[in-house]
Amino acid sequence: MAYVAHYSDVPQQDLHNGDTIRFTKKRVLIGEKEGAPNFIMRYFTIEKNGFTPLHKHPWEHESFVLKGEGIVQTEGGEKKIKPGDFIYIPPNELHQFKNVEEEPLEFLCIIPMQKEEK
Amino acid sequence: MAYVAHYSDVPQQDLHNGDTIRFTKKRVLIGEKEGAPNFIMRYFTIEKNGFTPLHKHPWEHESFVLKGEGIVQTEGGEKKIKPGDFIYIPPNELHQFKNVEEEPLEFLCIIPMQKEEK
Repeated sequence: MAYVAHYSDVPQQDLHNGDTIRFTKKRVLIGEKEGAPNFIMRYFTIEKNGFTPLHKHPWEHESFVLKGEGIVQTEGGEKKIKPGDFIYIPPNELHQFKNVEEEPLEFLCIIPMQKEEK
Repeated sequence: MAYVAHYSDVPQQDLHNGDTIRFTKKRVLIGEKEGAPNFIMRYFTIEKNGFTPLHKHPWEHESFVLKGEGIVQTEGGEKKIKPGDFIYIPPNELHQFKNVEEEPLEFLCIIPMQKEEK
């Protein structure tokens, strides 16, 4: 059955490990639990000075920036990101999201099913 | 190669047919052309009094509301939608998005690859 909810109703998972991931939280909005067959919609919040891991993996990201500003580091260099920007990261490309501003950086990041990771 | 762009840089396709689809425009942000292997990120804008078709199909929608307010009609009835809401519509469920407000309703709608449709 179809459903509607607000992202803030979904509990956040704190991914911070003080090392490769800092000040980063994740909400899984739509995924396997909700019966989605093909892809997972996740909502990330990166606080000031936070970052996701600089890593690569065999699956793609399709992201959309909702709030705040930050930097995405890829094999092509660093690019600034702001609300309304979308980001495509193909499979097996090194990437990292960073927040270098005061305000939280918030974005959607969609991945194919069974590829859930930090 | 990874890339970043702003949604407003992507040309809009006008889907209005005066009948089953009204005052609705679509941007394909990330899809087959961009090399995405698994799913397509689309950006819809529904103007005042507009709606998408009341229809069903064998693929799911994962949507996220960015701006404006509207109504999603599904087999479970009508639900109001507002910014920050996410919507899951499973395969083969009847659905329609409607804008009954003055301001445009804008939302992301992600579908699996090779299922592109209006």
